Amino acid sequence: MKRLLIKSLFALLLFANAAFAADPLPSWNDTTPKKAIVAFVEHVTRQGAPDFVPVAERIAVFDNDGCLWAEQPMYFQAFFIFDRIKQLAPQHPEWKTKEPFASVLKGDIKSALAGGEHALIEMGMATHAGTTTEEFEKIVTDWITTAKHPKTGRLFTKMVFQPMLEVLSYLRANGFKTFIVSGGGIEFMRPWAERVYGIPPEQIIGSSIKTKFEMRDGQPVLVRLPEINFIDDKAGKPVGIQMHIGRRPIAAFGNSDGDLQMLQWTAAGKGARFCLYVHHTDAKREFAYDRKSSIGRLDKGLDEAQAKGWTVVDIKKDWKRVFPNLKNK
Amino acid sequence: MKRLLIKSLFALLLFANAAFAADPLPSWNDTTPKKAIVAFVEHVTRQGAPDFVPVAERIAVFDNDGCLWAEQPMYFQAFFIFDRIKQLAPQHPEWKTKEPFASVLKGDIKSALAGGEHALIEMGMATHAGTTTEEFEKIVTDWITTAKHPKTGRLFTKMVFQPMLEVLSYLRANGFKTFIVSGGGIEFMRPWAERVYGIPPEQIIGSSIKTKFEMRDGQPVLVRLPEINFIDDKAGKPVGIQMHIGRRPIAAFGNSDGDLQMLQWTAAGKGARFCLYVHHTDAKREFAYDRKSSIGRLDKGLDEAQAKGWTVVDIKKDWKRVFPNLKNK
Repeated sequence: MKRLLIKSLFALLLFANAAFAADPLPSWNDTTPKKAIVAFVEHVTRQGAPDFVPVAERIAVFDNDGCLWAEQPMYFQAFFIFDRIKQLAPQHPEWKTKEPFASVLKGDIKSALAGGEHALIEMGMATHAGTTTEEFEKIVTDWITTAKHPKTGRLFTKMVFQPMLEVLSYLRANGFKTFIVSGGGIEFMRPWAERVYGIPPEQIIGSSIKTKFEMRDGQPVLVRLPEINFIDDKAGKPVGIQMHIGRRPIAAFGNSDGDLQMLQWTAAGKGARFCLYVHHTDAKREFAYDRKSSIGRLDKGLDEAQAKGWTVVDIKKDWKRVFPNLKNK
Repeated sequence: MKRLLIKSLFALLLFANAAFAADPLPSWNDTTPKKAIVAFVEHVTRQGAPDFVPVAERIAVFDNDGCLWAEQPMYFQAFFIFDRIKQLAPQHPEWKTKEPFASVLKGDIKSALAGGEHALIEMGMATHAGTTTEEFEKIVTDWITTAKHPKTGRLFTKMVFQPMLEVLSYLRANGFKTFIVSGGGIEFMRPWAERVYGIPPEQIIGSSIKTKFEMRDGQPVLVRLPEINFIDDKAGKPVGIQMHIGRRPIAAFGNSDGDLQMLQWTAAGKGARFCLYVHHTDAKREFAYDRKSSIGRLDKGLDEAQAKGWTVVDIKKDWKRVFPNLKNK
């Protein structure tokens, strides 16, 4: 009798485990996007099916800012840039009177960003170059382990989207190779993306500055130069994908017009394709923005998604949970 | 009795199988290089050993020309360039009188190459740009399936080094990710490297020209432009490694001075490292060349290998077989 009970409990446990395994996307509501993701994965992984895709060709690409983690009130890398400016200020007395640095040092972020993209690039160069690649990795690692979001007080690495983490895991469990294709700095993402997203450095594609090989005291180093190498945004994304991956993805996930060409490039391949836009609609749990936002604008992309039948995630409606539950982490 | 016999035969079979499995490098003589490769792999893969390296960090990089396949009497990609010039000549009547194209069309390769690197780059641009990435992939695929080496009459893809194919497989069987890091064209290698070396497109690093995303009749394409994007040679190799892989390899295989910085960069990391040079010493079975060769010169690298104790393969002495046995293929 006791043995029977144990057997029954064991069977129940197996059943519970199977039931759990049957929902790889527990933070998604059972609405259209979740169904579309699961249907796509089942189509391309079923041996013998017309849309079957061999494992080697199961390439999925993800934007980072606004797709895998939040991007408001500004790209998280901008917080890093501003913190670096404060950190480096003692070595740059001229910054006290030189814009946009002076505004950053006064804490006036709005004025600092008034110069638009040009100002941001200037600050990026000043804070991302001049070190070796190893030094820069340490700088990013130190920053990311302590820096917190001004609104939520969470570590930036806890501002990742739990439903998207589940998609990453689900795809990998089905033989996909997952890549990040971001407008953000490639070396800003690599130091933590493996720990946070399970994506290794060789599967990160991003914007970059040039580096130069040098011998210093008999030791080889790669020095980061204040010169743009590649901008991995908009029409640059398919270029970056070709450069790094060399084959067309079969699935692409983005959230802004900056991802449109990546989705177009993915969608235009032969066979089954999956394109998804995350639409930020939840002002309460996250942020609500789209057609008029200066950060992560989703305008043309939203129209094209509707016209082409791409999957659009309405965060408010489709996600049970937005961020990871901190208590469980 | 019969059962015993079957049992014995079965045991023998298992033993034979184990014995076979115990030699992952059958085309290598039991000389120093083979022992060094096996010792390194055993050191870094033994859980708990001081030199243990986690799977994610087991990155091995390989030069291509002269390391994975032959490179004499000239880089195989140069044969491709010359064949392309002949193919494209009808669309370029001006080539009949314009050097270096005129010499190629006359079959005078020596004169065509007299202009050195500049001439080769000019011919490379004229033959590698102006198509979409998909068109170029087809052009390379068509060429590589039929083009043969002038001396051996073998397909170029049968001019790969059997002992190196075994090293690639052996490393992968031990959790390594294998990459090509070549001065050759990235899009010249990708169409066939997976079939021939088992290395997927996303693990190929090479020289490249720029590409541009465009819409043609509503379809997105990547157009190849006659403009250099990156030269993956000499000091460019560590730069290419950082750009594509984002972490330092623990093993590097090359054969020329063009690989020296890649080996230096690999060797300078912490923990166990393995650097190997293939030294072309076998005029009978392959080609013999080193310090004075214009193709694949190995001069400074040979000195540094000796000074630093890197492994140097003497093809004549260390390889049982050079090329794959065609009868078995």
